[in-house]
Amino acid sequence: MAVHSPSDHFEPTADSIHAARERIAKYAVRTPILESDALNVLVGARVFIKPENLQRSGSFKLRGALNRALQLGTAEREGGIVAWSSGNHGLAISFVAKELGIKATVLMPHDAPKTKIEGVRQNGAAVRLYGKTKENREEIGAQIAAESGAAIVPPYDDPYVITGQATLGAELAEQVAEMGGSLDIALFPCSGGGLVSGAACGVHTLMPRTAIYSVEPAGFHGMALSLAAGEPRTAPANGSSICDALLVPTPGKLTFPIGRERLTGGLSVEDDEVREAIRFAYRELKLVIEPGGAVALAALLAGKADITGKTVAILLSGGNVDAEKFAAYIATPSNTGH
Amino acid sequence: MAVHSPSDHFEPTADSIHAARERIAKYAVRTPILESDALNVLVGARVFIKPENLQRSGSFKLRGALNRALQLGTAEREGGIVAWSSGNHGLAISFVAKELGIKATVLMPHDAPKTKIEGVRQNGAAVRLYGKTKENREEIGAQIAAESGAAIVPPYDDPYVITGQATLGAELAEQVAEMGGSLDIALFPCSGGGLVSGAACGVHTLMPRTAIYSVEPAGFHGMALSLAAGEPRTAPANGSSICDALLVPTPGKLTFPIGRERLTGGLSVEDDEVREAIRFAYRELKLVIEPGGAVALAALLAGKADITGKTVAILLSGGNVDAEKFAAYIATPSNTGH
Repeated sequence: MAVHSPSDHFEPTADSIHAARERIAKYAVRTPILESDALNVLVGARVFIKPENLQRSGSFKLRGALNRALQLGTAEREGGIVAWSSGNHGLAISFVAKELGIKATVLMPHDAPKTKIEGVRQNGAAVRLYGKTKENREEIGAQIAAESGAAIVPPYDDPYVITGQATLGAELAEQVAEMGGSLDIALFPCSGGGLVSGAACGVHTLMPRTAIYSVEPAGFHGMALSLAAGEPRTAPANGSSICDALLVPTPGKLTFPIGRERLTGGLSVEDDEVREAIRFAYRELKLVIEPGGAVALAALLAGKADITGKTVAILLSGGNVDAEKFAAYIATPSNTGH
Repeated sequence: MAVHSPSDHFEPTADSIHAARERIAKYAVRTPILESDALNVLVGARVFIKPENLQRSGSFKLRGALNRALQLGTAEREGGIVAWSSGNHGLAISFVAKELGIKATVLMPHDAPKTKIEGVRQNGAAVRLYGKTKENREEIGAQIAAESGAAIVPPYDDPYVITGQATLGAELAEQVAEMGGSLDIALFPCSGGGLVSGAACGVHTLMPRTAIYSVEPAGFHGMALSLAAGEPRTAPANGSSICDALLVPTPGKLTFPIGRERLTGGLSVEDDEVREAIRFAYRELKLVIEPGGAVALAALLAGKADITGKTVAILLSGGNVDAEKFAAYIATPSNTGH
């Protein structure tokens, strides 16, 4: 990959995505493609489901973390890694650090899911909790990096990380093609935009006409607002959402320009729609999906995209959710008759 | 497949299994193989996980049901199908009947999981509930068949059904070989023995030296007792088990002779060990497994088989479990420190 200059429009290329796929192949799982009769009938489309909750570390974040960590030089590796994360990027970083024998420090919000905080610790990384309203995680991270010589691996606004997530799009398109399909539409969860921007480039290497949509929790739908405005916008973020992984209200400096080029639009979903998707995945797909991982499915089930008769892909991006919360999500009776 | 004479020792052959795989290929999913770092580390072995909870109808039972239904003649199809089932065979039969446009009646116990009874009804089959202690399901089924001309598709003691389940073993061995592995040991859940006997034959077509074990709920471990005695035995069945799919206390007339030839031994697990396996699958595999589907994993986690350093396969056989019960299983804190 060419060195990124901040003034350029960065975008993963077919070559850089291919190189990333080769780089991470030994460590990342080629997650399967699933189909659900119940889902296809319910939404009137053929839906290819990519379950990255089955990825090592429990989410797609492994891909970007691997693609960055595997390109650290020997001296950089010795300094270790520092990262900030709502949880899944931290799990991925700590998993990769353990795998490669690198020290890692992860900054996580106090209110991150217990399973995510415990998972990072179990992987052997140091956890530094911070208060989301009182502290700036980028500043703390930069300070730790300056003091310790650790390399910063940002959660989304980084060329290596975006290219790592792009491997997911390329892999998905390749698998769908192997199954004889061609995607009209693909929906990806979106927080800072690393996944959807990278994956869009990945899908387009093989299927350049696929319409790609971001899906965000309502109130945190900064990518949707920005795409509609044609320039960066920040969502109100004045409420809350059960989607702990998707609470970034503004797309990244690198991810938005890619999104503007590559995305057809941005969708948003309410918490109740996400709960319904979690229940559906429990009942029909037999999968454990965390709230942030279920937003693309939620958008489909709630009819947010016009997909009748089309060939669609959705990404289930993660499955790291506290058991008490998951139990509550699936036990709540649905208000749509399921 | 040759017509089975009751006095013969019936066993699926490489040819009949191959034919069954071709027959059902259009309708059954080739479920993926998963691996879990956490599981491999915990049990000190390389474990290939075959998640048939991801199969259509939510369990492996689809395979046997398909292999039987697809060999019904035109006249037989018009008479419909009658089957008895604790749930998963009924879900499979009703799914296949819907797919092929055949009428189906399914006898299910009053205390079957709600999700299984509702699922059979949603597939359009007629459900006849019976009392397990007061009524004989085989007799009721035979009566319905005599009156309606319906074909009986038994849940396990049937050559077509056993050969259908054998496709799972052949597919598993093929996938493991593709991934560069060779199985020392494979563990399969067991109720009447259709799955484990068929799958053993399937695995052995490619890997004849793999040691195959049945896993049953303690108290219903008729196959284990029979294998140890060298002749059919009935387990006490005087307690209860959360494994609603595995409550047959005596192996079948066809399945036990196959088991005696093909199985290395029989294991049994307690309900608490099954709950622990369900929690593990929730937390580490991100999969929804029903109690009966989790017994092979439970046996591994509880150290019931000597697998250190070996290459192992386990089948997760189904994922049809009421949400309220699943919520209770995963919310209960583990007593082993997880």
